[in-house]
Amino acid sequence: MSSEHEPASDRVQLRRGVHRGSHDPVVIREILAAGMVAHVGVSTDDGPIVLPMAYGIDEDTIYVHGASANALLRSARSHEICITVTLLDGLVFARTPFHNSMDYRCVVVRGAARVVDDPTERVDALRLITDHVVDNWSAGRPPSDLDLRKTLVIALPLAEASAKIREGGPVDEPEDLDGPHWGGHVPLVTSWGIPIDSVDLRVGIEPPATITAVFGK
Amino acid sequence: MSSEHEPASDRVQLRRGVHRGSHDPVVIREILAAGMVAHVGVSTDDGPIVLPMAYGIDEDTIYVHGASANALLRSARSHEICITVTLLDGLVFARTPFHNSMDYRCVVVRGAARVVDDPTERVDALRLITDHVVDNWSAGRPPSDLDLRKTLVIALPLAEASAKIREGGPVDEPEDLDGPHWGGHVPLVTSWGIPIDSVDLRVGIEPPATITAVFGK
Repeated sequence: MSSEHEPASDRVQLRRGVHRGSHDPVVIREILAAGMVAHVGVSTDDGPIVLPMAYGIDEDTIYVHGASANALLRSARSHEICITVTLLDGLVFARTPFHNSMDYRCVVVRGAARVVDDPTERVDALRLITDHVVDNWSAGRPPSDLDLRKTLVIALPLAEASAKIREGGPVDEPEDLDGPHWGGHVPLVTSWGIPIDSVDLRVGIEPPATITAVFGK
Repeated sequence: MSSEHEPASDRVQLRRGVHRGSHDPVVIREILAAGMVAHVGVSTDDGPIVLPMAYGIDEDTIYVHGASANALLRSARSHEICITVTLLDGLVFARTPFHNSMDYRCVVVRGAARVVDDPTERVDALRLITDHVVDNWSAGRPPSDLDLRKTLVIALPLAEASAKIREGGPVDEPEDLDGPHWGGHVPLVTSWGIPIDSVDLRVGIEPPATITAVFGK
């Protein structure tokens, strides 16, 4: 992978498996665009905590949101946090389990979380989160003022980020290649099922084109 | 979900979406058995860090491993850590994006990490990690003493754990149900591709039965 891009700080310097790493913003954005769940980590007096969250991205920021009372997001305000997005692409079976691995794409972003207070940025961020996997914001009832007041939005700059990608089969010891053991990898494939109407859907309402275009009907 | 099981500590008390949560060890184990990637969080002087790792479980412990030089695992030794396992099961589209959500299964485990020094427990733990998704330990060349020396194994008790499961379609505001907007959910389906031989595989070596039984041939 590209080594042209230097890490933005020492703490996002890749140390293990450097040949699989990158600080290229294009690579980082591609992985974040393909991912669907962010694991958000904060340090608390009671030890670290990591929770899965939806997220959205723009050019230079990753956004997560939650209820205004969400303890993790509240403790994240103005503190250092880490947001990690991982896509699992397959399992790697080596000649020895010591070299078993997984194929994956992963981005780790570190930095100081900022509460998004500006009303315009807040709505823009919520739209980015809503539209992250499939454009959906415009298809629904716009959020009310009450909805917005109930929601806490946290921003983290993409400045301090690193990516790691592992692809393909195992990397075995040379002396194991002549042995009797198989080596290879098995891709993990994800696909969408057909949209399922809500049990309380009114008769005659169809999914919007934004949904059927991506998921079928 | 079950509310018979009390949280083991205040810090794994569920606070948001309590009706979707559980402290039932059976539920927790089912999710951990189905998951494939753990997001491991530690607090460092430089802020929290969260990295994806393979894992294994036995009755009362979750194990992760890495290179002996792995900075995250080294800083985790004898410290509080958090291990979170999430399976994404689908996307939920509400009548308003404010109520959009995801279907998922998630387990959060918190506690003090312990380095696994005992040689027997170390090998047992590595076997649990290797065999977590598909039994594979016995099919390969056993790890050498050098392999084992290069590997750091960390254990975290499952004592302080909580589970959360979200299933099905959206939960909308009553006044939105008569509106013009669609609501529903789209399942995410994961499946395995066909095993791909390593590029350096010797002619005549076939995948073992443990692989073909799960992934086909």
